[in-house]
Amino acid sequence: MGEFNWTKKDLLSLYDLTGEEISFILDTAEEFKKVSQRNVKKVPALRGKTVVNFFVEPSTRTRMSFELAEQRLSADIINISADSSSLKKGETLLDTARNIEALQADLIVMRHPAPGAHVLLADKISCGVLNAGDGSHSHPTQALLDIFTIREKKKKIKGLKVAIVGDILHSRVARSNAWGLLKLGAEVHFAGPPTLVPKEFEQIGIKVHYNLKDAIEGADVVNLLRIQHERQKAGFFPSTSEYAKFFGINEETCKYLKPDTLIMHPGPINRGVELDSSVADGPRSVILEQVTNGLAVRMAILFLVAGRVKK
Amino acid sequence: MGEFNWTKKDLLSLYDLTGEEISFILDTAEEFKKVSQRNVKKVPALRGKTVVNFFVEPSTRTRMSFELAEQRLSADIINISADSSSLKKGETLLDTARNIEALQADLIVMRHPAPGAHVLLADKISCGVLNAGDGSHSHPTQALLDIFTIREKKKKIKGLKVAIVGDILHSRVARSNAWGLLKLGAEVHFAGPPTLVPKEFEQIGIKVHYNLKDAIEGADVVNLLRIQHERQKAGFFPSTSEYAKFFGINEETCKYLKPDTLIMHPGPINRGVELDSSVADGPRSVILEQVTNGLAVRMAILFLVAGRVKK
Amino acid sequence: MGEFNWTKKDLLSLYDLTGEEISFILDTAEEFKKVSQRNVKKVPALRGKTVVNFFVEPSTRTRMSFELAEQRLSADIINISADSSSLKKGETLLDTARNIEALQADLIVMRHPAPGAHVLLADKISCGVLNAGDGSHSHPTQALLDIFTIREKKKKIKGLKVAIVGDILHSRVARSNAWGLLKLGAEVHFAGPPTLVPKEFEQIGIKVHYNLKDAIEGADVVNLLRIQHERQKAGFFPSTSEYAKFFGINEETCKYLKPDTLIMHPGPINRGVELDSSVADGPRSVILEQVTNGLAVRMAILFLVAGRVKK
Repeated sequence: MGEFNWTKKDLLSLYDLTGEEISFILDTAEEFKKVSQRNVKKVPALRGKTVVNFFVEPSTRTRMSFELAEQRLSADIINISADSSSLKKGETLLDTARNIEALQADLIVMRHPAPGAHVLLADKISCGVLNAGDGSHSHPTQALLDIFTIREKKKKIKGLKVAIVGDILHSRVARSNAWGLLKLGAEVHFAGPPTLVPKEFEQIGIKVHYNLKDAIEGADVVNLLRIQHERQKAGFFPSTSEYAKFFGINEETCKYLKPDTLIMHPGPINRGVELDSSVADGPRSVILEQVTNGLAVRMAILFLVAGRVKK
Repeated sequence: MGEFNWTKKDLLSLYDLTGEEISFILDTAEEFKKVSQRNVKKVPALRGKTVVNFFVEPSTRTRMSFELAEQRLSADIINISADSSSLKKGETLLDTARNIEALQADLIVMRHPAPGAHVLLADKISCGVLNAGDGSHSHPTQALLDIFTIREKKKKIKGLKVAIVGDILHSRVARSNAWGLLKLGAEVHFAGPPTLVPKEFEQIGIKVHYNLKDAIEGADVVNLLRIQHERQKAGFFPSTSEYAKFFGINEETCKYLKPDTLIMHPGPINRGVELDSSVADGPRSVILEQVTNGLAVRMAILFLVAGRVKK
Repeated sequence: MGEFNWTKKDLLSLYDLTGEEISFILDTAEEFKKVSQRNVKKVPALRGKTVVNFFVEPSTRTRMSFELAEQRLSADIINISADSSSLKKGETLLDTARNIEALQADLIVMRHPAPGAHVLLADKISCGVLNAGDGSHSHPTQALLDIFTIREKKKKIKGLKVAIVGDILHSRVARSNAWGLLKLGAEVHFAGPPTLVPKEFEQIGIKVHYNLKDAIEGADVVNLLRIQHERQKAGFFPSTSEYAKFFGINEETCKYLKPDTLIMHPGPINRGVELDSSVADGPRSVILEQVTNGLAVRMAILFLVAGRVKK
């Protein structure tokens, strides 16, 4: 992995990283992927370090993936959920974080509904802060695992056409992927109903489509976002069946794909809405490999941040 | 433990096991029972293995027992409850399980309300699947710990008269015990009100009684099932006090027991309903030993399934 | 740490301990404080021991602190909350505890709303019982960490003037601190509105004030208790702003303090009620050091009780 030394205390957003830093995380993750393929899936890298998983919003898969990554690195782990935190008693977020710091925790993995909450903490406390999702803003480890999966399959990122389809407006996955992919030289396309895909994204070099075909035709990667039923109730689109008809990937719309287009999804899938089962379980799908790679990427970033070289 | 090699990937039901396999689990559990009696109650048998405890229905004692068994085997452990799972977001059970598999988990310990849910998963995913209770159908580790306790006390199973008393209709404990005990040559008696003890069980060789005395007189073992208050509300019996009068074990009905009859209960006990305190805490009771043995039995099955010999 | 041998199975209340025993816990905690300052914050002292955290009342900071202390001692850990316990199914507390004992747990750390619940268990089961708070009665590890912090800063306890201000009536922190501080020779002052500070405390040698100035003037330590909004609703004082005016520590009331008075708070802080931010975050505050010391004190008591010398 060359001469690169990791110096950042936190992982807040891919927007803050250079292409070189992103590539270094991915290189490190390749090494950690091997750990989970061994018979004894464990290394002592974080032994005697304390990681606090602080999930103010509920999460299953991200929490599980982080927790397992921490276990495979032999860290000591404390889990705090929104329900069990003192935030409910009116404690400020900063006081809660300072308490965690006073317990000599090394790292805080936080999911929080407020964009920027992580920046505040990272600035005020000495623990490393890893963003596990902040509202609609950023979800850097999801983007890293997506990019890792693409790089592993396509052997490069530069020049690839990557289409991200769905509820872009509310999606931290879309934003984080876009930042990372653009830094590594991919061509990023967003598609979905106009209510869910702000035209403004064109200003940062993303191509915006209100038509599925234009976005996915010739794409190397199609990343589908989960359609939340709440959005339909809020009037962003008329019905899930209409959404599926115009923006769902199914046998019919598959005809625009190349044979080797990768089908990705951050999960959990709404089968029959944004993605049909025939495609989700078909040969183009790398959805379960994304899950496997998520673990490797999270082990890598935990390892790098915990062992950073002080500048 | 002789030449026997464990080859099964899953523990779904005692119905699927041979008497020889059941005995082999019990023999293995005898060894693991010693671990919990040591000063350092821990062995490295599952170090670097990942066990996911996936409890779609709540559970205290089974979950605690499994989790502690896994810790004493040094496994890495992830807990998922119904609340915290993606099932709530509409993810299919199979997708959730495939995600767990993609995290390279080795074993899934699952409690699920739907009989057969475990069979589906065991068939579709490569992780070992251990049934920690599926609706009214099966609860194999509970039956194994009951049979272990009987064997430890009586030095045999064959030929013993075992009475199981209570809400047989809804009881996975009764079914699992019956399958295991019949395979090992015991005589199984079910007793309770006619609304709660289907006559059909006679077809598989169980003796059905609607009268407590006939079931427990001369019995070597009396296993009491917990009476759930919901059943009374649903009209299965007129009142808990009437239930206690006709089917409760108390000073009065104890007169039908032999001095060395074992009193068993899967817990938690409704003191004064199916079992009086004088008997629950009396010399015939092995209820707390069942708890101790549950840990040994679960360590054994986790160990065997994780280390199975591929056929 | 001299010739002292720890012989107590349980930590129920500081009321039960001698001054010598309290000092021995504090001396031991000094050693454990160093563990959390190392790069590898972990010792194998409780390896292969099982600790059950049984929190019948919710708790964030005490639970986190105990859980982390247990991890840093390498214990195996089971967490049970009120929601997940069988108490909800009508199991008696004693039956639940006997089940935990039957799993060969070594220690139970319990928070329970009923004063005396711990005494019952300690008497009936062989596991060590550590009181993590029982109603308004006792919270010995909180008092130990408070006294540890005072001793660390002031190099003594004897002769110090310690003021505890707020809702004394409902406060286990106040009672526990008072017992410990009196045994070690400090002068204890309670202050707050008459509805919240029973005059009866004078009978055990505490000075009671209904006026903030008298309590804090010349004090070496001022320990502020959290004002719960429920108390105001129940009519114990007219409004939180009136409470803050008469009993809050702020720039104004700070003038009665010595330059080296320690400001303490068990957390979480109601900023602007019992304590203003300028003081909470100011040079006299040792609030976050209390959190750090809590971990050391809990490691010490877990270690002593687990390794006690049988008398």
